[in-house]
Parts: sequence; C-alpha cells; structure tokens
Amino acid sequence: MKIALVGIGKIALDQHVPALEASPDWELAATVSRNGKVAGVPAYARIGEMLDAHPEIGTVSLCLPPVPRFLVAQAVLFAGRNLMLEKPPGATLAEVHILCDLAMAQGVSLYTTWHSRMAHAVAGAKAWLADCDIRSGRIIWREDVRKWHPGQDWIFEAGGMGVFDPGINALSILTEILPVPVHLTAAEIDFPGNRQAPIAARLQLGQNITADFDFRQEGPQTWDMEFQTDRGSLALRMGGNLLEIDGQRVGGQDSIMGEYPALYDRMARLVEQSASEVDVSPMVLVADAFTLGRRTTVEDFEF
Amino acid sequence: MKIALVGIGKIALDQHVPALEASPDWELAATVSRNGKVAGVPAYARIGEMLDAHPEIGTVSLCLPPVPRFLVAQAVLFAGRNLMLEKPPGATLAEVHILCDLAMAQGVSLYTTWHSRMAHAVAGAKAWLADCDIRSGRIIWREDVRKWHPGQDWIFEAGGMGVFDPGINALSILTEILPVPVHLTAAEIDFPGNRQAPIAARLQLGQNITADFDFRQEGPQTWDMEFQTDRGSLALRMGGNLLEIDGQRVGGQDSIMGEYPALYDRMARLVEQSASEVDVSPMVLVADAFTLGRRTTVEDFEF
Repeated sequence: MKIALVGIGKIALDQHVPALEASPDWELAATVSRNGKVAGVPAYARIGEMLDAHPEIGTVSLCLPPVPRFLVAQAVLFAGRNLMLEKPPGATLAEVHILCDLAMAQGVSLYTTWHSRMAHAVAGAKAWLADCDIRSGRIIWREDVRKWHPGQDWIFEAGGMGVFDPGINALSILTEILPVPVHLTAAEIDFPGNRQAPIAARLQLGQNITADFDFRQEGPQTWDMEFQTDRGSLALRMGGNLLEIDGQRVGGQDSIMGEYPALYDRMARLVEQSASEVDVSPMVLVADAFTLGRRTTVEDFEF
Repeated sequence: MKIALVGIGKIALDQHVPALEASPDWELAATVSRNGKVAGVPAYARIGEMLDAHPEIGTVSLCLPPVPRFLVAQAVLFAGRNLMLEKPPGATLAEVHILCDLAMAQGVSLYTTWHSRMAHAVAGAKAWLADCDIRSGRIIWREDVRKWHPGQDWIFEAGGMGVFDPGINALSILTEILPVPVHLTAAEIDFPGNRQAPIAARLQLGQNITADFDFRQEGPQTWDMEFQTDRGSLALRMGGNLLEIDGQRVGGQDSIMGEYPALYDRMARLVEQSASEVDVSPMVLVADAFTLGRRTTVEDFEF
C-alpha cells in the first residue's frame, strides 16, 4: 500500500523512514515538508499539492509537531485518505475529537499512535498486572532535552508540551498496562523563566502513583516505572523495553528499536479492516496536569 | 423524591435551596457541609454519615468546589445513589470519565449540569443558528470577582479555575448553540503574580470565534456573545438570557432566575428514565487553553 509521510524532521528520518523501508506492507510514495526530503521519493512543500498529485496514495502519516498538525490532518481526511498521527495526536483534545468524527464520517481509518506502547515489555507488563491490586507506583522519566531535541525551540513554545513530550510516553504506557483507569490528583510544574512550556513536572495520580518528569538529566538517562502490588513488585525499565518481577529480569530486550515497525504494522491491519484506533487518555492526563498543576518559575533554559 | 445537598456555601443558599423548595419533584431531606446548614433539614458533617443514616435518599447533589469533589462523588456512586454535579463536574477530565464509568456500572443517573445552558434565550439561539454558517463570533465575559466570589480564595488556587469559573459558563453556552464542534487554536492567559489560577484569558477558537474573559471588571458587568452568520447577526446578552437578531430583541427575559429550577427539573426527568447526561466539552476547551495557552504574569490580586 502506498503511503505519504508529512514532516521530514529528526523523528521521520530516525524512525519513520527506516520502518517504512523495512515494511512488507508499505511503499513510501511521497513526502511533504518545508525542507526535508527522502532520496528517490517525490517531495512536495504543501499537503494540498501532494494530495492532488497522488490520488493513488491511500494513507498519510504525520510526524509534524502538534501545533501545526490540525489543518494538515483535516486536509488528509477531507481528501478521503487514511490518517496516522505521531504522538501526541494534536495540540488540543477538542481537535482530536473533531478529527475522530471526521474520519468516521469519511469512512477512513484514523490511528492515534503511542510508540512507547510498542516497547518490548509493555504487553508482558500489562498481562502480569491484569490480576493485581496496585498498592503504589513510581514513574521516573528523566532525560537530556539537549540530546533528544537539540535546538528544537518549538518544544518549549506554548503548546509544545515541554517535558510532557517525553512524559506522555510514560503516561501512554501507564494507561495501557494498568488494570483500572487512573486520574491526576495533584501536580507541580516547573517553567523556565524564558520559556512557555515546562522543563520538569511532578505528578500525583490515583492508586498512589507518582511521576517525576525532568528534561535536565545529563549522563545516564532514566525511563523507569515500578509498581508494588498484592502479588509482588513489577518494574519496567528502558522505556518499557525491560521487565522485572520481584527484582528479576523476566522479559524484554535491551534495545529501543522495533516500536515504529510495530506501529506501521498496526496501521496496515487497521486499513485492511477499515478500522480506527483512537485513544486520548495520555493527553487527558497532561491537559489535567496543566489545568490542576501548581506552577513554579525556575532557571532560564537555553539549548 | 428525596435529595441531599452537599456543600452549603453561597451557591447552595443562593440557588440550589430555593430551587429545591420551589420544586414539585424534590424534597430536601439532608445536607452535608463543614459549616453551613439549612433550617429544619438534618445536617451532617461527612458524606459517609449521611449516606449511612438515610438509605431512603436516592439522589445527592454536589455544590462543592471542583478539587475536593471527586472522593465525595465516588462515595455517592458507590452507595448506589443518583448524582448531580454543579459545574464544572470535576477538577480533571480523567476523574469525570471515571465517575461516568462508575455511574453506568452502578446503574444510577449522573448529570453534569451546566446552569448557563438553562438561561432563557439559549434554546432559541441554538434553534436560530442550526441552519447558519458562522462567519465569526465574539464572546465577552467580564465580571467583578470581588462581587461574585467575595473572599473565595479557593478560586485562585491551583485547580480553582480562576476566570475560567465564569468563563466556562460562556463555553457551555457556546458548545450548546453552535451547529458544529469548536476547538481552541490559541490562548493568552494572565496569572496574578501571587496566584495559581488566572484572572483573565483571551481565547481564539475555530470558526473565527474569540473569547475575552476578565475577572477585574468593576461597574456594569458583561456576559455577551455575538455571531455574524450567512443569515444575519445574532447576539446573546445577560449570560444567555436575552436574544437579539440583527440588532432587534426577539426573545428571552431580563432576569437570570430560572436556571437552577430547570436543572432540578431535568434531573428529575433523568432519574425517572434511569438516564444520564454527561458532557465535558466546556471542560475540554478550558483544559486545552491551559495546555496550549501563553502565560503572562500580571499584577498581584487581593480581595
């Protein structure tokens, strides 16, 4: 099946293009981007031009930042094409609800992807927790924004999400593996004095779960979550890729590859079945944190 | 039908108690509050005591501020009683989703009220706009917080919503009367230096609609919205109570009474039909504004 990729930046070149090149289902047939291109693939600067020129491309995948994405997404759906969205699926919850209604009205597939849910150990953790009572949980998601988003000022602009850009990956795993729905009860959010989006946040959730998100961690990076339950303890490490039960490693792989191939495989199955998969629960927790959180101003940040 | 009222503060005494006293459907059979009471009605300090003492009370109405409300709401639903929530229905979207699932599982009625939707001219405005293309819209919601929330510091605490406490009334009318769903595209939010919740906000929404919310308006108060359409102009004034078409008053009443009696009438019909009415779309727009909005620090505020 032919697919077009919109937004040829770092995440597209690092993850989406290799996943498509290795896929038995997809052929990358066009790109749309202001600057980026992929060698040997027809490139367009505007979504409308690509849609007009390629009626044979049935599916479009967007890896744009959240703020400029909505109008592009709407154009894809109005043109009757299937749509796959990089996380988070929009800058606002209301726009995702509108896209969802539009996809249903157009009879096309919509997939709001959460790549971290495809990490190696997530399914195993979900299966193990299914019969447990959660006593407490602790999420620690600390990474170096200079390493993972070098010079990407958009991430600190209003709507850019700041530290919730990686933090929402943790929340996407949490909402996938917990046997009960979770809600936010309190939050503290740290904004650099010269930025509109937070550099750190500490969340308190139901089921006695805490989350510690920080964009300022140099040296070793941490993407861990640990749960105490009535049946023992579970830890997911390496962003959902390693699973430990009662301190013993029982599954997963020491690698973060494989998430994007799994997303494109899932999208192929959705298109074949004319089905959609839309879940905004990680976005709801972030919006709730911005609504309910106490704001603190911290030291200015420059890349 | 017997009903209990929880949170005997200003809004309860000004609106809920008179509406219940005048209702042909309801008998106020108990209250729960730390301090407030209603003469001649059994009063309790804790929700659990009231629920245990009054198995004959089938319905509970909460007029607590949003942050402490969730645990009380959960207790009511776990006890198998119908639940009516003052706006906004929770401090977070996730908790309202959890309450909604719980009410369905318990087989009881849940009503997330939006009192401004019951203003006299809202239904007429909705009917008139149903066949229109909206060209532009302008909401101006400016009131004096010292007059309407005297000394209520909770409204400026984290989760207290600040100027979105009245602003969400405008958004509840907007989401009711528009013929198409609306989403937020940009926001500017003003926080007093000494407060955690905003004192003013300016929103940009789809369909070329703007909203101007301000808590600092002394003198005449303004709760207006105006729309330009392909079929002429419509204005709602006095918080949805007066309707003008092309500048001519065509409906409504110069009074803001009647909203709470209409809410309790609606709740009686929902209970009779074992039905629920849950709509979080005004909350979604506020959460989106907190997520997407540019924050500005403005002058400290004291009551």
